[in-house]
Amino acid sequence: MNGATQQLARFVAASRWSDVPRNVQHEAARAIMNWLGCAIGGCRDRTVEVMVAALRDFSGPPQASLLGRGERFDALTAACINGTSSNRLDFDDTHLRTVIHPSVPIASALAALAEYRPLTGAGFLHAFVLGVEVECRVGNAIAPEHYDRGWHITATCGVLGAAAAAAKALELDAHRIASAIGIAATQASGLMEMLGTMCKSYNMGHAARNGLSAAFLAEAGFTSSPRALEAPRGFLNVLAARNDEAEITTDLGSRWELTHNAYKPYPCGIVIHPVIDGCLELRQEQRIDPPAIVAIEVDVNPLAQTLCGRKTPRDSLEGKLSLYHSAAVALLDGEAGVRQYLDERVRASDVAVLREKVVVNTDAAIATDQARIRVALANGASHETFVEHARGSLARPLTDAELEAKFRALAAAELSPPRIDRLAEQCWSLERQADASVIARGSFSG
Amino acid sequence: MNGATQQLARFVAASRWSDVPRNVQHEAARAIMNWLGCAIGGCRDRTVEVMVAALRDFSGPPQASLLGRGERFDALTAACINGTSSNRLDFDDTHLRTVIHPSVPIASALAALAEYRPLTGAGFLHAFVLGVEVECRVGNAIAPEHYDRGWHITATCGVLGAAAAAAKALELDAHRIASAIGIAATQASGLMEMLGTMCKSYNMGHAARNGLSAAFLAEAGFTSSPRALEAPRGFLNVLAARNDEAEITTDLGSRWELTHNAYKPYPCGIVIHPVIDGCLELRQEQRIDPPAIVAIEVDVNPLAQTLCGRKTPRDSLEGKLSLYHSAAVALLDGEAGVRQYLDERVRASDVAVLREKVVVNTDAAIATDQARIRVALANGASHETFVEHARGSLARPLTDAELEAKFRALAAAELSPPRIDRLAEQCWSLERQADASVIARGSFSG
Repeated sequence: MNGATQQLARFVAASRWSDVPRNVQHEAARAIMNWLGCAIGGCRDRTVEVMVAALRDFSGPPQASLLGRGERFDALTAACINGTSSNRLDFDDTHLRTVIHPSVPIASALAALAEYRPLTGAGFLHAFVLGVEVECRVGNAIAPEHYDRGWHITATCGVLGAAAAAAKALELDAHRIASAIGIAATQASGLMEMLGTMCKSYNMGHAARNGLSAAFLAEAGFTSSPRALEAPRGFLNVLAARNDEAEITTDLGSRWELTHNAYKPYPCGIVIHPVIDGCLELRQEQRIDPPAIVAIEVDVNPLAQTLCGRKTPRDSLEGKLSLYHSAAVALLDGEAGVRQYLDERVRASDVAVLREKVVVNTDAAIATDQARIRVALANGASHETFVEHARGSLARPLTDAELEAKFRALAAAELSPPRIDRLAEQCWSLERQADASVIARGSFSG
Repeated sequence: MNGATQQLARFVAASRWSDVPRNVQHEAARAIMNWLGCAIGGCRDRTVEVMVAALRDFSGPPQASLLGRGERFDALTAACINGTSSNRLDFDDTHLRTVIHPSVPIASALAALAEYRPLTGAGFLHAFVLGVEVECRVGNAIAPEHYDRGWHITATCGVLGAAAAAAKALELDAHRIASAIGIAATQASGLMEMLGTMCKSYNMGHAARNGLSAAFLAEAGFTSSPRALEAPRGFLNVLAARNDEAEITTDLGSRWELTHNAYKPYPCGIVIHPVIDGCLELRQEQRIDPPAIVAIEVDVNPLAQTLCGRKTPRDSLEGKLSLYHSAAVALLDGEAGVRQYLDERVRASDVAVLREKVVVNTDAAIATDQARIRVALANGASHETFVEHARGSLARPLTDAELEAKFRALAAAELSPPRIDRLAEQCWSLERQADASVIARGSFSG
């Protein structure tokens, strides 16, 4: 058999770390640092607290840590909770073509695995790169229909990536890697309807857990269809009527999806980012005094309004999907960080007043990483700016230093400065670490 | 809000056991007995052994028993393994309109719950009836497109039924029951491509586990979309472009889907059953000597050939989906029980020889519970019969005594006759048992 399932499995089995180009290897370290910061920053969210309360009684032995928190659960439960916490702030990475957030399901599965079975830092990064490749290539094959239909593509493809990555980390052969991918394929799930509810990030946690358990089942000899992806009633056809299997197999080993990964400077819907850039720029360069603002006009791509058009968000989850809220806090606070999307800031009266002054216009000629902002002031003055590419877009990526600064700001919620220094250093040097579990074990104090 | 999600949740919350008609109450006891026998009969299958080996290390405290086996795992893991074992023999029940096997996901979730939290026998049966109602009504709303597309409908709808049933057993209010249904909806998964592999029954176990965990998450306050089923990007639209929400809500409380449930007399694909009936009848009434057979001609509905047309099955899993194998063993052995579908019987040379003599013709004028069989003998004689309705069909249901005999045959693999007597009695009297966990605790020896 030579369909996508088997080709992917053979590619994953045969790959050596030295086959991975240096820029892709470095991108893996960047992605892990970004993911880990998000996990630590999100670890005390109410979504996570409720999950821990509900699942604690069913957990097995203390095999793996909750990132940022330190409680130890069985590896599958830890993968599930860490997958949820690392997505919860909506601050994780984005594969722009598919809108997959690649790292969360895969890194969460691997981090739990690394505390349970021996895994080197290079082994972790290598498995991660291959998992992203599986996840995003399958995403390419089913986009855009799959996402448009209402599937939460990070979850449905993430479980495949997590399974492939964990299977590689377990050093399974191609036959068992294919089984792991198949076991994951029949567990692919996740509805976009869950946006704005706790289930949204749980979709990711569920994918991490199921991907990891698929690898353990495959290791034990559990069987699946050898054509799980491409068969007439397999993943591709069932989850997207229009799909292209060749997207999965073309240029395997020469084209790397991780090079198309972007990191968010702001913890909210990515289509909002150029608006925040423009508001921050106007505030700083024009020294705008927020009380003097009488109107804020925002021109964006229609997709931004579709995904993030919530005019009156009621809480953090909805605030992250609101162009209106984001423009208001950027102009009021001069930043758009985790604090600007907490419940209390979303409900603050000064924000509500300014939100009311925001008008959003849509224009298909404006790209999703562009925005035009006009601010009218009480004295009759008006200021305007056009953002050509949002910060964090592929055309204007975050530098290593910016990524580390983001990581440090997120980690500060749980860790002292010396511990943050050490953990940042361990992320950058992960390739040389003998034991990849340093990452999880260094993510909490105590 | 008054969509299907909320209407179902309010119905489940408000229902009292005394609201359930007597015939439906009795059907629940029949379904539980049938399901329990299947779980005990399937509990040593290799699929189950591999699952136990792979998942054992991650299990939490010993909260619930593996049916038939007795090892104790955390309730979620036990639900998963029991959901797999009780489907493994392909001997469980069938809601004919949707081809859902209703009991497996729901009863497996409830049995694990009953060992972990207090639950009376009547509470178990009541939650079961309501879970079946949720599961099969959602199935009605998305059939036939959903199944035709390649979804394993027992898994995708089973997780909803398991969640609703467990939420009722936990005595959650309507709001939290709706959350449980929503949490389950975003975990709905399962591909038909998995037929013939270990993943096929795992789809059911996964549904049982996820439905049960959805109820525990909802109990703890986890949120989901209040329109998880009917929203534009909710379960119905994403999993079936053509769907009918009214199927879910019409006649709630007056029409009961459990009355459309059928029980298999043979552990194989249901469309094969009339062929087995005909072969057994000819063998007995015509005293056919198998070596004298030169040809067996079988006329069936085209669906039977599509689903079960495997001419040369290689193992038990494939044998259960083979008209050819089934006709051969029925004529050779004079029965078609668990033993006739073991690997060794599927691979036996006498069976292979007779299988070669089977010819299948399809005829759309023949219903799926009908078949015509012609057997030609070496002496020139020929015998023919037409089966009007298969045994176990709704037109010719198994009697209580036949169901109990099936249960006894299955349970004999693990239990002594006195224990079987006691367990059968506990099933029939479940409504009056103070503690529903008697079922799981009585299912193994030791």
